[in-house]
Amino acid sequence: MEGDCVRAMSEIRQDVTTEEWVIMARERAKRPHDFESNREDSLPVPAFLSSCPFCPGNEAKTPGATLSYLNTGTSKWQVRSFVNRYPALTPGGSRERRKEGDLFTSMDGIGTHEVLVEGPVHNRILAMMDDGEVEKVLRAYRERYRELIELSFVQMVLIFKNHGQSAGTSLEHPHSQIIATPLVPRHIRMRCDVAIRYYDHTCRCLYSDIIASEKSQGTRIAMETDKFLVFHPFASRSPFETWIMPRRYESSFANVTDEELDDLSHTLRITLLKLYKGLNDPDYNYIISSVPKGDEHNGYYLWHMRIIPRLAEVAGFEIGSGIHINTALPEETASFIRGMEIE
Amino acid sequence: MEGDCVRAMSEIRQDVTTEEWVIMARERAKRPHDFESNREDSLPVPAFLSSCPFCPGNEAKTPGATLSYLNTGTSKWQVRSFVNRYPALTPGGSRERRKEGDLFTSMDGIGTHEVLVEGPVHNRILAMMDDGEVEKVLRAYRERYRELIELSFVQMVLIFKNHGQSAGTSLEHPHSQIIATPLVPRHIRMRCDVAIRYYDHTCRCLYSDIIASEKSQGTRIAMETDKFLVFHPFASRSPFETWIMPRRYESSFANVTDEELDDLSHTLRITLLKLYKGLNDPDYNYIISSVPKGDEHNGYYLWHMRIIPRLAEVAGFEIGSGIHINTALPEETASFIRGMEIE
Repeated sequence: MEGDCVRAMSEIRQDVTTEEWVIMARERAKRPHDFESNREDSLPVPAFLSSCPFCPGNEAKTPGATLSYLNTGTSKWQVRSFVNRYPALTPGGSRERRKEGDLFTSMDGIGTHEVLVEGPVHNRILAMMDDGEVEKVLRAYRERYRELIELSFVQMVLIFKNHGQSAGTSLEHPHSQIIATPLVPRHIRMRCDVAIRYYDHTCRCLYSDIIASEKSQGTRIAMETDKFLVFHPFASRSPFETWIMPRRYESSFANVTDEELDDLSHTLRITLLKLYKGLNDPDYNYIISSVPKGDEHNGYYLWHMRIIPRLAEVAGFEIGSGIHINTALPEETASFIRGMEIE
Repeated sequence: MEGDCVRAMSEIRQDVTTEEWVIMARERAKRPHDFESNREDSLPVPAFLSSCPFCPGNEAKTPGATLSYLNTGTSKWQVRSFVNRYPALTPGGSRERRKEGDLFTSMDGIGTHEVLVEGPVHNRILAMMDDGEVEKVLRAYRERYRELIELSFVQMVLIFKNHGQSAGTSLEHPHSQIIATPLVPRHIRMRCDVAIRYYDHTCRCLYSDIIASEKSQGTRIAMETDKFLVFHPFASRSPFETWIMPRRYESSFANVTDEELDDLSHTLRITLLKLYKGLNDPDYNYIISSVPKGDEHNGYYLWHMRIIPRLAEVAGFEIGSGIHINTALPEETASFIRGMEIE
């Protein structure tokens, strides 16, 4: 009987950047094609939607722009950012902690929360754009990052994108979000602690050493360019998790160069296009990870992007243990992506 | 224009058990009724499904029982557990760590992974059962916990339940899962570290002190019985997050008493029934949190249950920062649950 067979044992891998473990459950192993989303092409998404607050002509439905890049020689915007109409955090207030009794600590929800519309066309997602359009989005990220990180009450700026409903957005029009927080959360401090300990032991950046190891092993690399390495990490928490890391050491996204943004626009576009084509437009999140404010001149952190396709639900086991169960080996998913022909 | 209004500022609260922060985003605040699931009652779920491997008569479709409680005076089982047909972890193998280069650590996927079927009736979910049926489930949890925690290669036993698709299950027949792991993950060590530090400072258990604080404030209590306190924690990560804590100090679920299980069966059933009725059968996860093996005789940890209704998607911000955004205040959700009349 099938259930009684002892099949190949699973493997538990450690993420060296967090010291968390991931179960690679080969028993449930699927082939890369099994992860295709079953997105239904019920209704084609239109290029313009008059009811969409992010479509051109509806600018009055959103707060005033904090950034607007016009197309050369026109008065039409290509990228536009503004304060989120339902902000999680707002400027003003105090960073002082309040106590309710001995145990409960709270503070004002200060910070900023912006939306960045990635282009004027309602159905033109990043994977469908050309390199120049993606480059404008990345340049806008950097400009907003640089301005927000300087605010006195800000300690961290997180740029992120939610694509698709299971990734947490219901708005179709391509957009990213930027939240500046008044504190460094424990989640980030923990990553930093691990990297600082590694730095103190070795005088090297953990993330740069990961790049060297991935290059020497080669099996988890999805793409390589002059300035970036794209790979599926050894202890990927979910199928097709993808990290994009710069080859040049730099801790803060504020200091990414124009040449790097040029390269990244192509690298990111191809990476997203391959996920789109290989997995039928899966829902995904990406984040730009950067060092907390004030630590820019230490040598322990490397800014990078992490893309997490939402191909599996986080369930009780993950919530209770912090251990994720991944049903695909990164060596297999990276090989699948590396081998894809596009165009 | 609406988007430009400055509305009530949000608040950031700290979870004293993890030191993580949660944004209580009043700007997006909804009323408790807004969280009702839109589960479609397309097809009523039948009481028996011949194709369901968990339904009576299909026992041969699953591995042999590791536990089976019969109904008094019959040969029919009421609760039954067995090894998962697609186990994430299996017994056998070594706990030794392997190294690939300097950075990548892995080990055999050893441990155990069981399914516990909560009753013979395909559509009789926990919230619909009577106290006696729930009590059998809880007694089975304890029996499996006691046996699995004694295995030489096991360091932690996690009992959890995934209810509904967005909570990570596609199997309708009411069931829980039990995974025994060969290591204590960082996620759990971190909770322990916080509680140990508190213990060293105060000589008291953090969780017991939380109970005392919640009782003295009163506003987040959902239910109170002789032996348990049910409340929505101060820094709830998602709407209607619910903790059930025993009043008697005990670190390990292995040592819960019969009297406590009696009380808990009623307490848990009412809690789940109120969520079912109040939110239209929402998807949810619950976990039983217990001290890691070997630490049972320290005074720092209190075993407890955590119920997390899946009412919001985790998105890029949560993935990147570890900060959750909660759109409902626990004071309001607890008041809603507390005030519900059920029969």
